[in-house]
Amino acid sequence: MQQEGTNTGFRYRLHTIIYEADTRAGKLFDLILLALIVLSIVAVMLESVVPIKYRYGKELQIAEWIITAFFTLEYFGRLISVKKPVVYALSLYGIIDLLSVLPGYIDLIYPGAHFLVALRAVRLLRIFRILKLVHFVGAGNQLVEALKKSRNKIAVFLYSVIVLCIILGTIMYIVEGPESGFTSIPMSVYWTIVTLTTVGFGDITPVTPLGQFISTIIMILGYGIIAVPTGLISAQLIKNEPTSLNTQRCRNCNADHHRDDAIYCYNCGYKLNL
Amino acid sequence: MQQEGTNTGFRYRLHTIIYEADTRAGKLFDLILLALIVLSIVAVMLESVVPIKYRYGKELQIAEWIITAFFTLEYFGRLISVKKPVVYALSLYGIIDLLSVLPGYIDLIYPGAHFLVALRAVRLLRIFRILKLVHFVGAGNQLVEALKKSRNKIAVFLYSVIVLCIILGTIMYIVEGPESGFTSIPMSVYWTIVTLTTVGFGDITPVTPLGQFISTIIMILGYGIIAVPTGLISAQLIKNEPTSLNTQRCRNCNADHHRDDAIYCYNCGYKLNL
Amino acid sequence: MQQEGTNTGFRYRLHTIIYEADTRAGKLFDLILLALIVLSIVAVMLESVVPIKYRYGKELQIAEWIITAFFTLEYFGRLISVKKPVVYALSLYGIIDLLSVLPGYIDLIYPGAHFLVALRAVRLLRIFRILKLVHFVGAGNQLVEALKKSRNKIAVFLYSVIVLCIILGTIMYIVEGPESGFTSIPMSVYWTIVTLTTVGFGDITPVTPLGQFISTIIMILGYGIIAVPTGLISAQLIKNEPTSLNTQRCRNCNADHHRDDAIYCYNCGYKLNL
Amino acid sequence: MQQEGTNTGFRYRLHTIIYEADTRAGKLFDLILLALIVLSIVAVMLESVVPIKYRYGKELQIAEWIITAFFTLEYFGRLISVKKPVVYALSLYGIIDLLSVLPGYIDLIYPGAHFLVALRAVRLLRIFRILKLVHFVGAGNQLVEALKKSRNKIAVFLYSVIVLCIILGTIMYIVEGPESGFTSIPMSVYWTIVTLTTVGFGDITPVTPLGQFISTIIMILGYGIIAVPTGLISAQLIKNEPTSLNTQRCRNCNADHHRDDAIYCYNCGYKLNL
Repeated sequence: MQQEGTNTGFRYRLHTIIYEADTRAGKLFDLILLALIVLSIVAVMLESVVPIKYRYGKELQIAEWIITAFFTLEYFGRLISVKKPVVYALSLYGIIDLLSVLPGYIDLIYPGAHFLVALRAVRLLRIFRILKLVHFVGAGNQLVEALKKSRNKIAVFLYSVIVLCIILGTIMYIVEGPESGFTSIPMSVYWTIVTLTTVGFGDITPVTPLGQFISTIIMILGYGIIAVPTGLISAQLIKNEPTSLNTQRCRNCNADHHRDDAIYCYNCGYKLNL
Repeated sequence: MQQEGTNTGFRYRLHTIIYEADTRAGKLFDLILLALIVLSIVAVMLESVVPIKYRYGKELQIAEWIITAFFTLEYFGRLISVKKPVVYALSLYGIIDLLSVLPGYIDLIYPGAHFLVALRAVRLLRIFRILKLVHFVGAGNQLVEALKKSRNKIAVFLYSVIVLCIILGTIMYIVEGPESGFTSIPMSVYWTIVTLTTVGFGDITPVTPLGQFISTIIMILGYGIIAVPTGLISAQLIKNEPTSLNTQRCRNCNADHHRDDAIYCYNCGYKLNL
Repeated sequence: MQQEGTNTGFRYRLHTIIYEADTRAGKLFDLILLALIVLSIVAVMLESVVPIKYRYGKELQIAEWIITAFFTLEYFGRLISVKKPVVYALSLYGIIDLLSVLPGYIDLIYPGAHFLVALRAVRLLRIFRILKLVHFVGAGNQLVEALKKSRNKIAVFLYSVIVLCIILGTIMYIVEGPESGFTSIPMSVYWTIVTLTTVGFGDITPVTPLGQFISTIIMILGYGIIAVPTGLISAQLIKNEPTSLNTQRCRNCNADHHRDDAIYCYNCGYKLNL
Repeated sequence: MQQEGTNTGFRYRLHTIIYEADTRAGKLFDLILLALIVLSIVAVMLESVVPIKYRYGKELQIAEWIITAFFTLEYFGRLISVKKPVVYALSLYGIIDLLSVLPGYIDLIYPGAHFLVALRAVRLLRIFRILKLVHFVGAGNQLVEALKKSRNKIAVFLYSVIVLCIILGTIMYIVEGPESGFTSIPMSVYWTIVTLTTVGFGDITPVTPLGQFISTIIMILGYGIIAVPTGLISAQLIKNEPTSLNTQRCRNCNADHHRDDAIYCYNCGYKLNL
């Protein structure tokens, strides 16, 4: 939008296609990118299934090469078309884009490296950028804002939960002992977290009456304190709700977050154009 | 209601019985339908229990035949009595009604087809129409509306959870490996969803210390982020039901937030103009 | 309070002791009753533990006899001291009181009857009456009222969950089949409820890829829709909050639920005495 | 702050370092204390892992000695620098500080006492004091206050849940019996709590159809009533944070619900008097 009239050449057109979703070419680009990312992830998943890899290993590798090639072109396209390539390259999305390209090339040097699988899964994060361009922005922003605002309370809550789990885990270790599967304090803390979060795998379970009694306390505790983060987010979302719907800005003083039915700016009294 | 005076014949009476619940005949029809639907489902369930099928297989098949006959009659009744039969036949409930009738007839051609069982369970959806006619409408509508309004946010939330599960599942696959039961990435993602949603079957459990450590993070994450959809629905439901319904103010002392049924001002005793 | 001056005899004194908690004797009576109920339940529990029954069976039986004797006396005391004994005997608490006494006597006729254990556990319900007399009333009432008001919505929600579980359970039965433990549709529906409610015992788990995929959908569904009842109760509790704190009634028109800062009755304009 | 000018000697400086976090020395002290507490807990945990203890037992014991020495010095420093040492020694944190020091010395008398491990985990509680000095205070206080205010309701809720679990546990014991793992009523109540809180270990599972049916009721109950504590905390947190903080009205058009920082009326543009 604030692009100068002079760079209406190749770089400007490229920028429009890659970064914007308003034009037909831009939308098509986004759709192809989305399809390739999903395809790439599906390929990674299928390759890990032994019988499928055995049969379609060749085809999956070819698909991976095509995807890597496209992502490489796209990465250079982004670098060229943007005004400040260094800023882009060092931004979060710039790094994710680079990480999406690397596995294909590292595989040439160290074939079959195990950690590459995780790197390839990182590509999934790229979808968030594409989504940014569509109509989920508002919803996403509201969620993120609510989480940010209750961040401190969530930190206090999480910290308390972890302290609780360590202390209760230590007690369970003393009560149950190694013969019930509570072989060490870290193992016992792991079990306490499994129980408090109501996951309850059942790989380790208390067998002594006292251990079972303490377990019930841990469970009821976990069942009850889940209300705390829920209440926090609820309260924050309700508080956020009213101010976040109106997107207009005052032409006079640039103030935003007006009420939905606002006719005049709350800050300078200037009439808002509706 | 907007029925013309001329079609007070058989079709009109049929329509009243089948579609309305105000008359005695209409209510009776709904009750019989409700009973037959429940009976039909119970029959499907019992037939799947081997010892019961062995003993009462004959009786259950006869019951199924009677129910199919009734549902067929009812389906034609609906087709005849409605003004635009094609619109009905292609509507959601029209298709469900047809699907409720089919299994009985398909069974004649392909006896004992396995997927018929699922088709017969579809009948259960028909109850929602009967409930539509009674006093649950308001409550149901409010729920559906709250879900609809927070749809976008729920979509963003679900998408983020799935991305998270795929990335964490891939990491767990690398960390734990096939010997702990994490045989492939899809399996590992399945396990991550089992853990994040706090279901925790325990059919696969991490055995390496690092795997157990990452598991605890997944569990605490799952325990914490459940607050997000809860907060969303809560906020939406609270917004839908304004806490202070009464908006009037006392003309004498300007006090507000009166009870909905207030006749006099709680602050000065002045009569409120209603 | 509305007792006539004439029945200040034995029955009146008994009534004060048994039904009121304001006097010293009344409080003492409540405390003894509370202790005996808890003792009785502990005795029932301990008697079910084989080694304890083997050793202390005699002592536990004697304790049961003393408790039954006291409860019998108390039951007759309640019958005598109350104005309308028949109304009491047929009220909920009257029946619970009778059921608390019966097990001891039935045991004489059918010694060791298995179902008596459950009857004896019913005694636990009596504690609610004692609690009624203390300071938990307000809190309890608010909870019960919130639950009552969102009853219709909860019914719609529960009904939808059950329909969902039956349909998903039937699908899982077709997909997984008896060899994975999904031996019948009722069993499969049981598994679906175990999974949807995020309990996840792990006694039955899906083994086919398609079954595991449907499972993840069930889990995410269960993880998400828990937000609905939570949101309902939250919204109801928030709505209830403001009107439920003030306990005074208007002397003129007997209206209650005034605002906390009310000076005049909202219904008749009469001045409230604060 | 209310320190007299005369005690600017050693005790005052010590007090500033130990109790305050405003000065550089105070911050450094807090950081060292935090590091030592975490280190101490890590040491306790690692010592419980048999292979690690076997290899690094000596080093861990030396670390424990250094930490005990530091904590001892710190405890005496607190005693000396505070104005009323007895009040401190008998305060909650005073006792926790003493308990943090004791294990090292008790170990000299009874080497390897099992319960010492739990005592050492108590040290973790000390972190809460350090956190008190930083920016989590507000968030923590708000949480604690919300919990305090809904205390009575939570007590009623918890009590009802426990009564429910005992009664349902007794019924399950009668229905399932010892051969399914429901060996006694306490065991059965333990299982009911495991199920109701949606933990679901799976170490004991119902096998009779009736038992499984009752289980599904317990699960749906547990799935549903979790909404109650969540709703309580949500309602309390929302009440604590009023959604519309601004109570002023426009003198010109009488509009209310202005933003907190509004200078002009959003409805008519008239200047609000602040």
